[in-house]
Amino acid sequence: MTRLVALDWGTTNIRAFHIAADGTLLDRREKPLGLQSVKNANFAGAFRDIAGDWMAAPARPRALLCGMVGSAQGWIEAPYTACPAATGDLAAALVAAPDAHYDIRVIPGLRCQGAGGPDVMRGEETQLVGAGLGDGVYCLPGTHSKWAVVEGGRIARFATFMTGELFATARKHTILGRSMVDAQHDPAAFAQGYVRSTAAGGLLNHLFAVRTASLLEGLQPQAAPSFLSGVLIGHELAEARKLFDPKRVVVIGAGLLVQNYAVALAIAGIEAAAVNGEHAAAAGLYAIASAAGLIAR
Amino acid sequence: MTRLVALDWGTTNIRAFHIAADGTLLDRREKPLGLQSVKNANFAGAFRDIAGDWMAAPARPRALLCGMVGSAQGWIEAPYTACPAATGDLAAALVAAPDAHYDIRVIPGLRCQGAGGPDVMRGEETQLVGAGLGDGVYCLPGTHSKWAVVEGGRIARFATFMTGELFATARKHTILGRSMVDAQHDPAAFAQGYVRSTAAGGLLNHLFAVRTASLLEGLQPQAAPSFLSGVLIGHELAEARKLFDPKRVVVIGAGLLVQNYAVALAIAGIEAAAVNGEHAAAAGLYAIASAAGLIAR
Repeated sequence: MTRLVALDWGTTNIRAFHIAADGTLLDRREKPLGLQSVKNANFAGAFRDIAGDWMAAPARPRALLCGMVGSAQGWIEAPYTACPAATGDLAAALVAAPDAHYDIRVIPGLRCQGAGGPDVMRGEETQLVGAGLGDGVYCLPGTHSKWAVVEGGRIARFATFMTGELFATARKHTILGRSMVDAQHDPAAFAQGYVRSTAAGGLLNHLFAVRTASLLEGLQPQAAPSFLSGVLIGHELAEARKLFDPKRVVVIGAGLLVQNYAVALAIAGIEAAAVNGEHAAAAGLYAIASAAGLIAR
Repeated sequence: MTRLVALDWGTTNIRAFHIAADGTLLDRREKPLGLQSVKNANFAGAFRDIAGDWMAAPARPRALLCGMVGSAQGWIEAPYTACPAATGDLAAALVAAPDAHYDIRVIPGLRCQGAGGPDVMRGEETQLVGAGLGDGVYCLPGTHSKWAVVEGGRIARFATFMTGELFATARKHTILGRSMVDAQHDPAAFAQGYVRSTAAGGLLNHLFAVRTASLLEGLQPQAAPSFLSGVLIGHELAEARKLFDPKRVVVIGAGLLVQNYAVALAIAGIEAAAVNGEHAAAAGLYAIASAAGLIAR
């Protein structure tokens, strides 16, 4: 029996887990050492920075990585596995990272055929595995929010929405930011934005509505970011409903973002459950490592 | 009879026209001296920089301004006139700019009540006047595209879409820009993006589709901006159709943007006509000046 060093290695962050053979979490770390921060593609060095001490211990463990580290811009490209995909399909498609000393494997992302074209994910498949792959509809909010359907223990299909990235860029780089200041979340303004998203006009019009609400309807600069968030999450939810028609949604994530999705789902009359995203990542890495025979031997 | 100095003064640019009493265009200038470039709110100085020689001539003319110069961030705030509004309503609501020497008036913008809340325009009302205010549906593409309905010679209602600004910010400040290079417009990629906009998933999903099309469908970096443009204009057109149900659309603008809207309208089976935006601005300024008695006296 060996321990497992497990990393969820994304574009901006790494979350690292040191896991005993029986699944007990021994230690965890989070560092802003995502792909963006890796100098000269020195992934081997970055890996040692974050997990070298765990790897150096006696009875050397194996390591398993998920996330953008398996993209063409990452350490080694792990080609997308096609949906529908179960835990075993991911475990069978691991790719070895080119490291001189350690046995490090990378989980592939998934691809599927959506309504208008292909879609992809990297990292979220591992969180879905960690959430148990029970049948149902899952939402993983974030920079690129994912909605996924699990059927028969397999990730059947999914869709991506650029909600989080559009929020950040509209806030920072468009005229909307001029009538906004950073402030605590305003639940009433969020609900107001959600309601606006359900009116006629569509997203391009409702983005401008953030400005007119500031100019003419007394929307305060402290409340405007929450209003914008309500507009965007409202549009994401409306389109995800059209695609997946959920009666119940499991939201995988943490903090305010999960709360906001829960509020939007509640207004829409859809039952919501929440799973912590970090727990799901650790559990998914452990489950895939087990299925691949990396732990018990 | 006096001449008219007429300025369309926006956020980034000024277009200035020197117009004879009978409407003949004597001279025109365009400078990147929009609101953004005016230092210390010295609008009087900026006005002299662009039109001082025309004003200094014998038989001093009056000046008429439209655009963001009449906003709270401009020279003098000209409060929005309510829709429905005819040429005479705008002419009756001119506001004098606080200049020590010249008679300078500013055209108010318009406001209307849209499906989900209020909407506003500044400058486009003058182009609509210049296009003749014939009954029908008008589209003014741009940073903040406007669609307007004219009924009985009055601007009845309108809606704004943040299409142009979203294109620019997505191109420059999101992950989509990474798979793009500047290149000539690609009509086939534009049509491909338009078609994607008509699939399920909605705009937030179709924005991500620009990335997946690059990753998995061979969309080339030279063609990706045109694809994105097709996605965005497609969504704008779809929502404007829901609001205004046009059989024919007059597109006011110039160049590639007008061509792109004409292509989108053609694919959608809607008849399109084009009016040059600069001509419309000059004609509208002259028409409103005439209605206000600034020229013939």
